Amino acid sequence: MLSKNEIKDIRALGQKKFRDERGLFVVEGEKLVEEALRSGFEIVGLYRTEDIGAEAMSRISQLTHPSPALAVVRQPAPAMAAPTLSPDELVLALDGIRDPGNLGTILRIADWFGIRQVLASEDTVEVFNPKVVQATMGAIFGVRVHYCRLARVLGCPAGPGMTAVPVYGTFLEGDNIYEADLTRGGVLLMGSEANGISPEVAATVTRKLFIPPFPTGAHTSESLNVAVATAIACSEFRRR
Amino acid sequence: MLSKNEIKDIRALGQKKFRDERGLFVVEGEKLVEEALRSGFEIVGLYRTEDIGAEAMSRISQLTHPSPALAVVRQPAPAMAAPTLSPDELVLALDGIRDPGNLGTILRIADWFGIRQVLASEDTVEVFNPKVVQATMGAIFGVRVHYCRLARVLGCPAGPGMTAVPVYGTFLEGDNIYEADLTRGGVLLMGSEANGISPEVAATVTRKLFIPPFPTGAHTSESLNVAVATAIACSEFRRR
Repeated sequence: MLSKNEIKDIRALGQKKFRDERGLFVVEGEKLVEEALRSGFEIVGLYRTEDIGAEAMSRISQLTHPSPALAVVRQPAPAMAAPTLSPDELVLALDGIRDPGNLGTILRIADWFGIRQVLASEDTVEVFNPKVVQATMGAIFGVRVHYCRLARVLGCPAGPGMTAVPVYGTFLEGDNIYEADLTRGGVLLMGSEANGISPEVAATVTRKLFIPPFPTGAHTSESLNVAVATAIACSEFRRR
Repeated sequence: MLSKNEIKDIRALGQKKFRDERGLFVVEGEKLVEEALRSGFEIVGLYRTEDIGAEAMSRISQLTHPSPALAVVRQPAPAMAAPTLSPDELVLALDGIRDPGNLGTILRIADWFGIRQVLASEDTVEVFNPKVVQATMGAIFGVRVHYCRLARVLGCPAGPGMTAVPVYGTFLEGDNIYEADLTRGGVLLMGSEANGISPEVAATVTRKLFIPPFPTGAHTSESLNVAVATAIACSEFRRR
């Protein structure tokens, strides 16, 4: 039996303010809860409809149609510094991704393609937002997101005496990604849904790429969705 | 000034029953309405907040936050038969895509990659559903969707004396898509979010493909979203 206070505390985790304060987040759904249990993340509370009843579940759930399982999970401690960039490791950088579904889908893509570190600008949607968590389909447990001043972190040398790692960004005037020379690692930078890569961050890009429509040069009224463009670019990097 | 009956008629187009009956659909948003006007589709009605007022717009709109423009558009007449498959043209086939956002995103991808014909199983979500239309970002005007018995249409010879066109489907036990021999045209078949390709339709597949995770053989708990997988597969076909 859940007390009123417990219900209130779990529900409060729907808001960023309380998630930040308590360092917790919520995952819902049998599959996602299972992933949480397997992940090594600390599970602070585990609630099943069969134990607490459907009414209590509907009160703690953020979903329109509550699932039979919900877990409260501790957020990993934020890293003191952004990860050191290496020319051997592919890292994803996100500049101003606002849509929770897009961020979740992008993390799912990153996980599939073995990308373990994601840098995100401070105006990117929070990764522990319930809609992001659900859209990751569990990838949230395999990919680390670091919020940082992107323009400052990108383009920094990997170590003393080393050169800066390549920063790849997609631009309309970029090189055809299918023909471009891609390094094994570096940073793949993706811009926001509405505005693309911001000028300050774009200045750190060393290699401009373009995903060409087919046939090349065809008039297409629209660009690709950011998650779709991320998928195609990651696929190209990993294919080589 | 809109009459009560006009408002009722436009609102009714939120339901499939009335869209089917009247052969109309609704597009909303400045950009999408502009695409509709440029598309050659017949515009049956064009409504702007500046003309009809915000209150009337909020009553005819399907959106939580109505945009300043809405158009009622005539559906193209359904083709009498599914398009003839050709080994020179790439066609997309969708088996049981239920999520409107996924279908819209897939059509946007098809448009980008120059795919003009999409075959869809009869249990695929209706293309004139407002959520699909919005998610296409205008691609609905460039890509034709034919609902049909997929299992019957796929794998049929393109013409008398011709052999059947290749049907590509993604399966866990398929060939690495990056290394597989892909023809210029044929059918790229994608399965539903929950169940993949149904057995009846899977029987028509002549070439099984697989998008490998990185590193290859890595344990990843989750598969790729169907729109993301479609994007990667289309990108691979068009790259060659």
